Amino acid sequence: MADHNALPLVILAEKFASLPGIGMKSAQRLAYYVMSMETEAVEDFAKALIDAKNNVKQCGCCCNLTERDICPICSDSERDSSVICVVESPKDVTAFERTREYNGLYHVLHGLLSPMDGITPDRLRVKELLARIAKGGVEEVIMATNPTVEGDATAMYVAGLLKPLGIKVSRLAFGLPVGGILEYADEVTLYKALENRNNM
Amino acid sequence: MADHNALPLVILAEKFASLPGIGMKSAQRLAYYVMSMETEAVEDFAKALIDAKNNVKQCGCCCNLTERDICPICSDSERDSSVICVVESPKDVTAFERTREYNGLYHVLHGLLSPMDGITPDRLRVKELLARIAKGGVEEVIMATNPTVEGDATAMYVAGLLKPLGIKVSRLAFGLPVGGILEYADEVTLYKALENRNNM
Repeated sequence: MADHNALPLVILAEKFASLPGIGMKSAQRLAYYVMSMETEAVEDFAKALIDAKNNVKQCGCCCNLTERDICPICSDSERDSSVICVVESPKDVTAFERTREYNGLYHVLHGLLSPMDGITPDRLRVKELLARIAKGGVEEVIMATNPTVEGDATAMYVAGLLKPLGIKVSRLAFGLPVGGILEYADEVTLYKALENRNNM
Repeated sequence: MADHNALPLVILAEKFASLPGIGMKSAQRLAYYVMSMETEAVEDFAKALIDAKNNVKQCGCCCNLTERDICPICSDSERDSSVICVVESPKDVTAFERTREYNGLYHVLHGLLSPMDGITPDRLRVKELLARIAKGGVEEVIMATNPTVEGDATAMYVAGLLKPLGIKVSRLAFGLPVGGILEYADEVTLYKALENRNNM
């Protein structure tokens, strides 16, 4: 925004532009939109930012984001505490919960190994996972990181730590997406689908 | 976001999703991103929202958004106050200022006529424009609304009010965009370019 623009608007646009996936043009549009909102709505928005940052923390057990000390999933006695699904981020928990099929617990690593970016195992919540398992009662750990180089490397690394402890470690199945068209599947996915074929 | 998500995060995601052009998925991603920001940065963001809403108002002369009573453009004595460029919104002022070629003043209507959406002339800053012109000194008004049905209708309406006052009213030229390819121009643009052709 040029000099003639009101400074508070320029600052607000810069804040929006600092968020991921929002360019300077969209950020300006959002800043103008805020001007058209009711004062109360803007105050609610500002409060929501502060509230989320101040009141949401990591669950003392699974490291998922929650406003309690122990999240609702970990404190749900009806869930199967012998299975832990290890994911990269809280949004992966949301994705699994949407399936309504998984009844075990989770563990959120808050990242994937990426030595190039300086993300070494001590930057992830691996220590916390090992501490949970040391308490006993866990029979299976499902490595549910993304099927990417970093996701695979992280799954391999964690599996390597858990196997000596006598824990069953599994990995999500890779194959054709349901509803997908074979012709458009990439080679690696098709190879995985072939390799992991099931008896009918 | 499902029930297992921390409520403050759900609320924050909803606030982001209420902004134009941000869907629920992006809103969730932004909410998670806020969690990863430094507390101070989040507080700055919240402050920027409130500051923009509280400290930015409409210029008492041209109705553009500004933190002063009269905006820097209207108070700049080196600008030509005999020409007023009438635009729909503050971001159009930014667009013209970027050309660095226009030295007159502006008038921001804050909308376009759209009877279907209940936007009648009294909802726009037309009264303020007429008051400015009544003070004298204005020789030309350039109608710089978008070349859309609403933009054209608004330009026609305002022109109809100004012409009886003996003010010269002009409209932006429509034609081929510079650097554009004739083959890809739509019929109406091409017709306008033909109709408004200039001698070489």
